[in-house]
Amino acid sequence: MITLDDVRAAAGRLRDRIHRTPVITCRSFDEATGYSVFFKCENVQRAGSFKIRGALNKLLSLSAAERAHGVVAFSSGNHAQGVALAARTVGTSAVIVMPSDAPRLKLAATRGYGAEVVFYDRQTEDREAIARRLEAETGRVLVPPYDDPAIMAGQGTAALELFEDVPVLDALLTPVGGGGLMAGCSTVAKAVDPATHVFGVEAETANDTWLSLQKGERVTIPPPPTIADGIRNLSPGLLTFPVLQKNLEGILLVSDEEIVQALRFLLFRAKLLVEPTGAVPAAALLARKLTLPKGARVGVVLSGGNVDPDVLADLLRA
Amino acid sequence: MITLDDVRAAAGRLRDRIHRTPVITCRSFDEATGYSVFFKCENVQRAGSFKIRGALNKLLSLSAAERAHGVVAFSSGNHAQGVALAARTVGTSAVIVMPSDAPRLKLAATRGYGAEVVFYDRQTEDREAIARRLEAETGRVLVPPYDDPAIMAGQGTAALELFEDVPVLDALLTPVGGGGLMAGCSTVAKAVDPATHVFGVEAETANDTWLSLQKGERVTIPPPPTIADGIRNLSPGLLTFPVLQKNLEGILLVSDEEIVQALRFLLFRAKLLVEPTGAVPAAALLARKLTLPKGARVGVVLSGGNVDPDVLADLLRA
Repeated sequence: MITLDDVRAAAGRLRDRIHRTPVITCRSFDEATGYSVFFKCENVQRAGSFKIRGALNKLLSLSAAERAHGVVAFSSGNHAQGVALAARTVGTSAVIVMPSDAPRLKLAATRGYGAEVVFYDRQTEDREAIARRLEAETGRVLVPPYDDPAIMAGQGTAALELFEDVPVLDALLTPVGGGGLMAGCSTVAKAVDPATHVFGVEAETANDTWLSLQKGERVTIPPPPTIADGIRNLSPGLLTFPVLQKNLEGILLVSDEEIVQALRFLLFRAKLLVEPTGAVPAAALLARKLTLPKGARVGVVLSGGNVDPDVLADLLRA
Repeated sequence: MITLDDVRAAAGRLRDRIHRTPVITCRSFDEATGYSVFFKCENVQRAGSFKIRGALNKLLSLSAAERAHGVVAFSSGNHAQGVALAARTVGTSAVIVMPSDAPRLKLAATRGYGAEVVFYDRQTEDREAIARRLEAETGRVLVPPYDDPAIMAGQGTAALELFEDVPVLDALLTPVGGGGLMAGCSTVAKAVDPATHVFGVEAETANDTWLSLQKGERVTIPPPPTIADGIRNLSPGLLTFPVLQKNLEGILLVSDEEIVQALRFLLFRAKLLVEPTGAVPAAALLARKLTLPKGARVGVVLSGGNVDPDVLADLLRA
């Protein structure tokens, strides 16, 4: 299992290669929730989400020989952009396996960071198999989205920075998809103070980790329809799940409507653009899913800010 | 004419009563413009714009007896909210004269800060006359939107904070409406370093200050149709204009399309919500209206972030 030292080592590798993102507060959010909330703004991170942290830590952990072969990843979302930018940052090449119907903007951003994109048909092909074949044929190193110690430790640096800026927090909340962000961040929170209340947040329809924690083993769900496209995973990771089991007090669940309300609140009150997934923990607080004493100090990772203008326009009309 | 000491005195009054707003940078904005740009984020100021600075400085400059009578102001925009919140902050009452067709959200926000709203008919009544009558009848002090030394000095505290955070700037840009923000900010910039290039930015159709500077006297224009509703003034102020004449190197003009492009850039790349007026100086930079050596350090005041969700949705579709 990863440790605080792994996260500290990752932070050393990432230094000056990524943004030290700001921690902001919002008086009206505090008034609405009754807590004192500290937002770690990964929505303004390089490539628009925390994903660059894990990807870059992974690439910097490879040997020079491994790195020279380049990397491969599969993702239609923020991980694609994170790996593409990480590869450019360390001076190697990346191939990203994306669905042929991937959003035009995400495709353009991934290519804009210099990655080669290989398409697959979402209906008939298995993206992971394609990536593994590319790995075998070309010697490229596969950069998994979450189930890898270097990825988990890299994502944890977001919490490390948050605790450096705000040393005392009663609770920490992040969205939970595959569990990489939460594995890293919860490791930091529990090392700083074992009494920290650590809660993951999932969309109601994407409750694979909630179910898995209940059952005590990894549960697989059908593809969830949630608007929070960053956490549409079907099950927690093989490596992330034991970390979540150990560190999490529980999972809070929010509806898509609560997510949209939180996104709108952050946009029009805090003037911050987050993507639906980035608004998930804020939704849990606004919808009173967390029950801590009034005035509790709560850290929240705003995980990303990549949202399509048309999608955002629809959310504003909703 | 106001001096740096007036602005410093205002900063002393405002301390701990308003937000010390962050100064942020955006790598992709710098790449797009060729400059090193520092954004002073008044879009996250209390009540959503810089207007609280001048309004609160004015109220804190009154005698206790004057303040006890309460204040009155006319505005359908950010000044209304600024005065309403300033009045609540110092524990007095405010009456705001607003058009009967004022945007619902701005009306709700103004009332939310505890102000009484008096409506007038935009077609048949003169809002300033109504405010003056209220002043005469009730003893309330009129808080003008810009043409007042205390207002100008208060707005200048935004630049004072910016120069504290970023001591060396080659240029400073703000939007120019009535000229209160620019009068205060340019006074600071020229006092810090007389060589600072200070440019106001107006919408092409709201070019009253541009025309006035050309002519050497205050010019009045017909009501401008620009989307930047915070700078739809018909002429610069009696007190602000001489300050602008003395301090400004010139006015840059931008089209509504350039304003919308800048708003979208700030939203989707910097993840910051600004209102159309708040995007006006950024528009001048993106549209290459400023010609300084590559790499020049440019300070920009993001003046406000109050935008209606429906209006924003329209801008995203544009």
